[in-house]
Amino acid sequence: MTREHLVDMVSQGVVTPTGLISHGRGEAFDYLMGERTIGPAEEAERAAAAMLLEAENPVICVNGNAAALDPKGLIAIAEAVPAKVEVNLFHRTPERMEAVISLLEAEGAKGVLGRVPEERIPGLDHDRALCTREGIWSSDVILVPIEDGDRAEALIAMGKKVISIDINPLSRTSRVATVPICDEISRATANILRFVEELKDDRSARLKILDGFSNRECLRATVDSICGSLKAEFE
Amino acid sequence: MTREHLVDMVSQGVVTPTGLISHGRGEAFDYLMGERTIGPAEEAERAAAAMLLEAENPVICVNGNAAALDPKGLIAIAEAVPAKVEVNLFHRTPERMEAVISLLEAEGAKGVLGRVPEERIPGLDHDRALCTREGIWSSDVILVPIEDGDRAEALIAMGKKVISIDINPLSRTSRVATVPICDEISRATANILRFVEELKDDRSARLKILDGFSNRECLRATVDSICGSLKAEFE
Repeated sequence: MTREHLVDMVSQGVVTPTGLISHGRGEAFDYLMGERTIGPAEEAERAAAAMLLEAENPVICVNGNAAALDPKGLIAIAEAVPAKVEVNLFHRTPERMEAVISLLEAEGAKGVLGRVPEERIPGLDHDRALCTREGIWSSDVILVPIEDGDRAEALIAMGKKVISIDINPLSRTSRVATVPICDEISRATANILRFVEELKDDRSARLKILDGFSNRECLRATVDSICGSLKAEFE
Repeated sequence: MTREHLVDMVSQGVVTPTGLISHGRGEAFDYLMGERTIGPAEEAERAAAAMLLEAENPVICVNGNAAALDPKGLIAIAEAVPAKVEVNLFHRTPERMEAVISLLEAEGAKGVLGRVPEERIPGLDHDRALCTREGIWSSDVILVPIEDGDRAEALIAMGKKVISIDINPLSRTSRVATVPICDEISRATANILRFVEELKDDRSARLKILDGFSNRECLRATVDSICGSLKAEFE
């Protein structure tokens, strides 16, 4: 069903054909994780909620695949934190920007940023660098679902804290992210939302969670979990 | 480059949009293997060559993704063994059949089967079951690159020996195949071709290789190899 929906989203101009290949890569990792949230992902989701709540200007960055796969989840987090939503496309054309923003607005998003970018993310070429001053440019914490490695690195280089949702623990995005969530996007947003509610009024819990979180430990535990399941298949 | 080629092949009607998602899944496993042929895959490629040479009526089954990714490699094996080539599509339409067969013929394939199917593979619904009497129907050994699990199972149920090229060691295809090759298709065909040349005049070597081959041991070693590389990333 998700596959058919994505193919449909290609014909609507939201997802690119290479976005389908990228989705397939994600499916493979989801398969390796048994299509469930593994322990280390849940810890990252908890840390993500804490980090979003602690932020001065949190922004949720949305691309075509993210908008196609889980608009409601991303919008719900934006409302709960609250955080801004900015559309930022790897293959940017005015038509795709409009298609993605319209889709989010149709799902209930308010004040979606990205139509009129005044700034550029340093170190990125072409239109991939474009962003708004109010959103990505001035954000301190940014949630990037299904982001490419170049952009994740460029955001880190700008001094931002980056929360990634990328199910591949070996990707450049997962390696450079401050908080790498290795989970399928809909499960990730549902969990982040739950933790946002839990941590909303508990600043000391938030600080403790953030203090104890390590990218490297999280990714190592993710790989251990995947290998445990893999090996169990042929015991 | 491969991604752009595949997207181009969608517009030519050879690959379907869901074929792009399937390719992405393969990319993820290739990534986990370090984009190289791992030891267990090479052993399976050797066994595949031996099995093709021992066959009475070996057939190479080609679908859209296989034709788009490695027509030359598949045709070279067909000539070297020799084996017949039959096009067999999951999403079958007359136009796609013609597009895939024409592509193979343009790459030099002779006598490609599939245009006029007289038989059906038992247990499969719709047009996916269609096959020719001269080819798949009467084959004893069949090489299926990038096959879906249903069809691989149905071919096994017909009593055929199935050699799969499917980079995912956990897929149903890999689990049911007589010889599961977990490798990227171009590397797999290059290696099979090399082993066909090596084993062409050595029947006793072929029988020894086939006698010592085990699907389960091969898949277990594949998973061990993947986990070894994964864990090494975060040592």
